[in-house]
Amino acid sequence: MTEVGRGLAKSLLSRRAFTTSAAAAALAPLVTANPAATIQTGTTGATMGAVRRITLYAERLADGQLGYGLEPGKATIPGPLIEMIEGDTLEIEMVNNLDVAASLHVHGVDYDVASDGTRLNDGVVEPGGRRTYIWRTHAQGRRGGGAGIEPGSAGYWHYHDHVVGTPHGTIGIRQGLYGPLVVRRKKDVKPDKTFTVVFNDMMINNRPAHQAPEFVAKVGERVEWIVITHGEFYHTFHIHGHRWADNRTGLLESLEDPSRIIDTKITGPAESFGFQVIAGERVGPGAWMYHCHVQSHSDMGMAGIFKVTDENGNVPGQPGGGHEGH
Amino acid sequence: MTEVGRGLAKSLLSRRAFTTSAAAAALAPLVTANPAATIQTGTTGATMGAVRRITLYAERLADGQLGYGLEPGKATIPGPLIEMIEGDTLEIEMVNNLDVAASLHVHGVDYDVASDGTRLNDGVVEPGGRRTYIWRTHAQGRRGGGAGIEPGSAGYWHYHDHVVGTPHGTIGIRQGLYGPLVVRRKKDVKPDKTFTVVFNDMMINNRPAHQAPEFVAKVGERVEWIVITHGEFYHTFHIHGHRWADNRTGLLESLEDPSRIIDTKITGPAESFGFQVIAGERVGPGAWMYHCHVQSHSDMGMAGIFKVTDENGNVPGQPGGGHEGH
Amino acid sequence: MTEVGRGLAKSLLSRRAFTTSAAAAALAPLVTANPAATIQTGTTGATMGAVRRITLYAERLADGQLGYGLEPGKATIPGPLIEMIEGDTLEIEMVNNLDVAASLHVHGVDYDVASDGTRLNDGVVEPGGRRTYIWRTHAQGRRGGGAGIEPGSAGYWHYHDHVVGTPHGTIGIRQGLYGPLVVRRKKDVKPDKTFTVVFNDMMINNRPAHQAPEFVAKVGERVEWIVITHGEFYHTFHIHGHRWADNRTGLLESLEDPSRIIDTKITGPAESFGFQVIAGERVGPGAWMYHCHVQSHSDMGMAGIFKVTDENGNVPGQPGGGHEGH
Repeated sequence: MTEVGRGLAKSLLSRRAFTTSAAAAALAPLVTANPAATIQTGTTGATMGAVRRITLYAERLADGQLGYGLEPGKATIPGPLIEMIEGDTLEIEMVNNLDVAASLHVHGVDYDVASDGTRLNDGVVEPGGRRTYIWRTHAQGRRGGGAGIEPGSAGYWHYHDHVVGTPHGTIGIRQGLYGPLVVRRKKDVKPDKTFTVVFNDMMINNRPAHQAPEFVAKVGERVEWIVITHGEFYHTFHIHGHRWADNRTGLLESLEDPSRIIDTKITGPAESFGFQVIAGERVGPGAWMYHCHVQSHSDMGMAGIFKVTDENGNVPGQPGGGHEGH
Repeated sequence: MTEVGRGLAKSLLSRRAFTTSAAAAALAPLVTANPAATIQTGTTGATMGAVRRITLYAERLADGQLGYGLEPGKATIPGPLIEMIEGDTLEIEMVNNLDVAASLHVHGVDYDVASDGTRLNDGVVEPGGRRTYIWRTHAQGRRGGGAGIEPGSAGYWHYHDHVVGTPHGTIGIRQGLYGPLVVRRKKDVKPDKTFTVVFNDMMINNRPAHQAPEFVAKVGERVEWIVITHGEFYHTFHIHGHRWADNRTGLLESLEDPSRIIDTKITGPAESFGFQVIAGERVGPGAWMYHCHVQSHSDMGMAGIFKVTDENGNVPGQPGGGHEGH
Repeated sequence: MTEVGRGLAKSLLSRRAFTTSAAAAALAPLVTANPAATIQTGTTGATMGAVRRITLYAERLADGQLGYGLEPGKATIPGPLIEMIEGDTLEIEMVNNLDVAASLHVHGVDYDVASDGTRLNDGVVEPGGRRTYIWRTHAQGRRGGGAGIEPGSAGYWHYHDHVVGTPHGTIGIRQGLYGPLVVRRKKDVKPDKTFTVVFNDMMINNRPAHQAPEFVAKVGERVEWIVITHGEFYHTFHIHGHRWADNRTGLLESLEDPSRIIDTKITGPAESFGFQVIAGERVGPGAWMYHCHVQSHSDMGMAGIFKVTDENGNVPGQPGGGHEGH
């Protein structure tokens, strides 16, 4: 996010905090530098969670694939990044502009069976129909009666169709009906940018082989990666030159945190994890590869570039900005 | 476990604590509401570990598969849930009622090579034979001489055959010779119920496709899940509406615990993990799917129902109790 | 490492500390009881990191496979174990004695794009050529400006070719161009011995099926395992009779450490982890199997022996030292 973008985000956040009500306020989507639009529900200073309402359109894209979008005709793969702060509630009215029944199933947050998004629980949206799914979140805390700690909702989660093709949404997911969800603790550090990588069968973000997205950041920017897997295969996500802690945030929580520091992680369908790195920290600007490290997968095109520029927007050794036809 | 069941368990535990001796006491198996019988060796108040002795029968089931059981003719798949408290010792006399050599190999606990259960270490039981395997456990503690902390035996482990078909027990495992083992720390919270899910090739608990067990609990019950994988494939275990911490117990140990909260976990052959959830916490009663999230695996039937009832035993939106032929 | 070996290591470490200079000193390779030679850059008492320089030769082995070695004609698979202490810098001049272009790509440590080892970043060594790669490391610490904790470089990492066969080094890796790297914190406990297991497709350390290395230690020795995966397949690493913590070191960092204790771990290509065990702790001497627990993989030969001897070098129940043609 540029300085301008960050200023914009702040002003939107303030405005949103002002208009928040328990009865649910319409929210203008916050479009950032990310490929997909972003919804943020967070209101940092609020003592109670916000209740927000958005509309999500399931649509067919021009290339025949499927996607979710915040406006008609604007569906993307992955779908919009949705951000929540623990305590927030999100009411999502899904409009099904497809010619098949579709749904919205979410990982990680709290929802009644009515918002499960499965046919089993009668949570499907017929073609031309609409339905509101409600996602709630909560902070961690001690349960009463000495019953231990209840984990909070914070995490790198995701949402996806659960009915297109099979009762598990296999065809809907394969064709692109999925997106990232981040739930933050109130005190979690916000990133400058968020990049989403979805390993879906042998594709990254449903793009053709050797055409994975290029992600760009300036040295020193705090970059958040969200990695989601879908489909049939396991993968190992790897970035050159950067590492993270294999825990909730990807960040060490204290100097005693025993988490393993890694730069490669095995992941299977419906798993998701995320982490933040400081772009180029200790390694400088450059065209850093990110890829699945299963050898045949990277050879067949599951690889892209994390382009870290210097202060002037240049990348050493990469005339033309690091692009070499990836 | 019902209130009645819980009372029964307590009285059995007391009686067992009373009869415990270092010379090993015969133990009446504790049959619970779980599909498989349960053996508990724990004696919460004891300052020294208990030594117990059980008999485990390897037998062919009526459907041709193989199983372990606590009594002749009572073998199940998975085999009986065995529970130990750190410090306990379990002497297991295995009786081989099969027509092939079989064995008992365990993960996680302490055993001499004589109890390794491999042909390499001459630990096999011939048809018609019997052999005693000894499993010991210990609590974590500091080693002498500043040599660091020795981990305790607590964990979600499992046992299985190591010789039927191949030196690694491939056919024995495939046909059902496996079961769960839980070792608890003395202060670990006990669950109301324990459910075991074994992903064995494309089956759950060696049941036919689309016939995975239905697990039932009442809202608010503390339910422990043990997930074990066997065979050839990796899987991703997922439950709808519930999450856990990706650590030793599945529970946050403190408010600073950096463990990731997850609802999906990749797992491969011979891995095991476990966790506790409060049934329906923040999401209410319902027919919650649990399944492997590899899309073809769930489509081919690796999916079941975690039925969380309300106080009256009902499940919203599920006439007939949530069963739809899964 | 024997007592003699340990004494030798100490004297080499002292001498090295003495000769260390920021201008980089030539380092006599430290050959240990490990199958592959070892390079240690650590200088325990130093307040600043050492800068060392080694030469690494990429060569074809007698059997046609490829390897890295510290001297011409001495290449091994895996390549030499390289050890660093956080803060150290290693300058590696790679000499390419192959008839194809090759490279050196490393995981976990700090390097500019010039040391990335990819064709994208022009980091390839042509046949007959040489090139210096620079690896830096750093300790964890708090960033300025409240920007959180920067993780240190400590970890169980690895290095490998990134260009032979494909831009991802698929053929180079398949044929043996890989090796282990350990970066330690200054206060990390040093092992008596380090064993490296590389699951590379269906091989262990590129050896033929059923010929995995036998690792030998005496009861009570502190044995470090480094497990690296390469190629196409996922695996589950398992050792009989021993367990570890699933965290950075494999050791519990405190009595409150929530890490799961495991004896089996799923791992995919380019992942690496390590841990230390006390050989035979609580289980005694014996021929303890280590193997991939994917059933077909172990059946096809991905299994070896961890031979733990008693004080006299004997292994119970294993005439001839536990070797049975593995």
